[in-house]
Amino acid sequence: MSVPHPSYKRLQKRSREISFLASCAGALSWDQETFMPPKALPYRAEQLAWLGGQAHRRFTAGTVGDLIAECEQAGFPPESDEAANIREWRRLYDRATKVPPHLVEKMERTCAHAREAWREARKQSRFKLFKPHLDKILSLNHQMADCWGYAESPYDALLDGYEPGATARALRQTFSELGAALGSILPAAVESSSAVPKDSLKGHYPMADQQAFNRKVAEAIGFDFGAGRIDPTTHPFCSRLDANDCRLTTRYDETDFTQSLYSVLHEAGHGLYELGLPQDLFGTPLGTAASLGIHESQSRLWENHVGRSAIFWEHWHPIACEHFPELKRFSPAQITAAVNRVAPSFIRVEADQVTYDLHILLRFEVELGLMEDKLKTKDVPAFWNERFEKLLGLKVTKDSDGCLQDIHWSMGSIGYFPTYTLGNINAAQLMHCALGENPAMDADLRRGEYESLRSWLREKIHRQGSRRLPGALMQAVTGELPSSRHQVDYLRKKF
Amino acid sequence: MSVPHPSYKRLQKRSREISFLASCAGALSWDQETFMPPKALPYRAEQLAWLGGQAHRRFTAGTVGDLIAECEQAGFPPESDEAANIREWRRLYDRATKVPPHLVEKMERTCAHAREAWREARKQSRFKLFKPHLDKILSLNHQMADCWGYAESPYDALLDGYEPGATARALRQTFSELGAALGSILPAAVESSSAVPKDSLKGHYPMADQQAFNRKVAEAIGFDFGAGRIDPTTHPFCSRLDANDCRLTTRYDETDFTQSLYSVLHEAGHGLYELGLPQDLFGTPLGTAASLGIHESQSRLWENHVGRSAIFWEHWHPIACEHFPELKRFSPAQITAAVNRVAPSFIRVEADQVTYDLHILLRFEVELGLMEDKLKTKDVPAFWNERFEKLLGLKVTKDSDGCLQDIHWSMGSIGYFPTYTLGNINAAQLMHCALGENPAMDADLRRGEYESLRSWLREKIHRQGSRRLPGALMQAVTGELPSSRHQVDYLRKKF
Repeated sequence: MSVPHPSYKRLQKRSREISFLASCAGALSWDQETFMPPKALPYRAEQLAWLGGQAHRRFTAGTVGDLIAECEQAGFPPESDEAANIREWRRLYDRATKVPPHLVEKMERTCAHAREAWREARKQSRFKLFKPHLDKILSLNHQMADCWGYAESPYDALLDGYEPGATARALRQTFSELGAALGSILPAAVESSSAVPKDSLKGHYPMADQQAFNRKVAEAIGFDFGAGRIDPTTHPFCSRLDANDCRLTTRYDETDFTQSLYSVLHEAGHGLYELGLPQDLFGTPLGTAASLGIHESQSRLWENHVGRSAIFWEHWHPIACEHFPELKRFSPAQITAAVNRVAPSFIRVEADQVTYDLHILLRFEVELGLMEDKLKTKDVPAFWNERFEKLLGLKVTKDSDGCLQDIHWSMGSIGYFPTYTLGNINAAQLMHCALGENPAMDADLRRGEYESLRSWLREKIHRQGSRRLPGALMQAVTGELPSSRHQVDYLRKKF
Repeated sequence: MSVPHPSYKRLQKRSREISFLASCAGALSWDQETFMPPKALPYRAEQLAWLGGQAHRRFTAGTVGDLIAECEQAGFPPESDEAANIREWRRLYDRATKVPPHLVEKMERTCAHAREAWREARKQSRFKLFKPHLDKILSLNHQMADCWGYAESPYDALLDGYEPGATARALRQTFSELGAALGSILPAAVESSSAVPKDSLKGHYPMADQQAFNRKVAEAIGFDFGAGRIDPTTHPFCSRLDANDCRLTTRYDETDFTQSLYSVLHEAGHGLYELGLPQDLFGTPLGTAASLGIHESQSRLWENHVGRSAIFWEHWHPIACEHFPELKRFSPAQITAAVNRVAPSFIRVEADQVTYDLHILLRFEVELGLMEDKLKTKDVPAFWNERFEKLLGLKVTKDSDGCLQDIHWSMGSIGYFPTYTLGNINAAQLMHCALGENPAMDADLRRGEYESLRSWLREKIHRQGSRRLPGALMQAVTGELPSSRHQVDYLRKKF
């Protein structure tokens, strides 16, 4: 390697310091969810706010802007690590500095109140209680979008925070194709699922047995317990504290082992990505995930394409029976059918693979309408309920089952939802490509051997970090931009 | 309260920021010992070094020295919180700044090597391998003592880091009285213990049952599990992450429940102190413990004076039997005798209550001899072995059972050992005083009610933080400076 550029070196050092702070915050947040005693909460909140402030100050300092500008002038080759890092530093710096601090603070304060109001509104199922807060959050998102700038839609400026390069225009196209296809798949999927009784697998599955089985599965797909662990929490998550330290969590329902199993597969998918990112670039943007839509593709791929396949249960059934003897009364095919049961329901997080994206498409329509001033907040419940019935065939009778069910808007997040569906689309596209490029992979998966799939993902996705924007990454790996057709093919074949 | 002094306010703010960093480091260290996956170690080490460096830089900045000087001129009343904090800031600032950074770094580097060498030397039981490292550590400790300054002995400058205000002269006097008394108690104690078989309580005590029983005991003495927890580690410790978050750890031997029980009582004693410190002063020196010798008094008091008393087992025996049915074959008196068995042995950490302080006295003699140039490092093993036989009647046949057994010197710590014995002395003195001042307390303890003792300690010791130097604190609470006579009385009565 050539002599490092002094400005680049200083940026690396600054970036590394920020990663120390971020990793502290990550560890403290993980601890807060897992083991922290309750009375520690107030200090922990202050401490996290202080760490966040320190990291923010270090990154948004004028000198950082100067260093980035100097690096941009330094003429690094466009395909170099340096150029990719500089591109991301610029993007992140602009996002962090273009919004004046008073607006950031106003958003934080607004969200603190909005979250409380949302909880109460959902409890009472009264949208009115949340509406004034949603108005404020929308107004602030509009102001922020104006600060960041956009070519076509203010929604694009928001999307860019979660899925760099994504646009409302492209999503509208992709999602409308997907929506039409899902609409045609749904009736047949529901029909074929009608033979599968609801909750057919319910039984008694002690937590310790679930933990032992989940661990075997996570190890089999390649999650390294020397660099990670799984602990119980209320809400499952994956948090990387450093290049060699990835903490997964899950929740356990002793009547239903599939909850923890599929959330472990999901989170371990995230974890494989995090632990597979380029280690030597840890602490620089290039060493981080490409986007939320790419991240979610990794979790969904292992959860659904691997974990909900018939061949998965053909391989794992005898092992699962060692841990859960009562599974012996089911055939692998019966378990597969049970974990793929399709039935429209009100709540997104409980939705099956076919209806899930319909939930997201609806949210996308609402967000886009609001941000493009085509939908008024007061009309959100009516719009939601009408569209929901059209898409899913169910009549929403209370807003807590409808537009009040998700926390996202109360946290100020507009533009986040589409990344869930992008994750599903990307997962299907990647899986299609992986199987196509590796003729032996299908046989591997049948034998419960996941190394060929994992190492393909590692090379194609994980090791790339954020070298490319997510769209360009998908293009480079699969030969096409994210397209709904592989997800549609996958679901059509399945149902 | 009057308008806060601006310099004092700035010091408070700086101190609070340092506490954020220290608390991060505390949480990361706790995580490292309890749950961290092994591959995370290298980054964690760097991160902790960075946090330590940040905290050090923030505290040793010239502006902090100026602020302290301004506060010293501000004329706070000598008994005020402010005056106590300023006194401690001055002491800590001087200790941190009088030693030039290159010396601190040299000590760190030296210790990193010394620790490795010590491990190897202990393994091979060859003092020679450790001697050159001990020479360097002594030389550096001499240089540091010169930087800090002292009136009589360079040892005083080292002691001040662990037990502010303690002097070699005073300790020599106290310890020689204690040594003589212990020498006279030992034969009778050994004699009376000879009827108690070694390991008489050995059995099978499942870890989960130990955890359940230990928790009951810790709760009974007042440890707040809403602000703390107990996790398993290789070496037991107590670490306060903030005013309302105290993490205890212990280790479990399934053949011997007394190990985890007494280490929980010990660590919970530390924990009661930490959680009892003045909460509103958290993040300032006044909100911290007075000294290691005071800290150790709190752990020893609960471990030995409470936990190894006959009345403890009269109360807890039936409850213990619920968890460990095999304890039914012992009477409370038999268990009490077993956990108080006295027999000289080589290893300090396994020593009983009578011989323990003899182990410390020997280390004090060695350290003092080395620091006052009356003992050469090459003569340490011979000196150790000769004195050991005189004090404890056993012939040391290998240095791994002798002068190589402890990690302390390899970590650069000279002057730390005496605080263990000061802890025992202070514990006996405080317990004597508590019982004297509270006629009902003995009956409370018999009933397994510990609130009167705990609240007395809370008021007299915990809530005082570091308002007074440890000697002055003992004087204020008990009417006399730390004196060995209560410890001697306690042991005489017991054996």
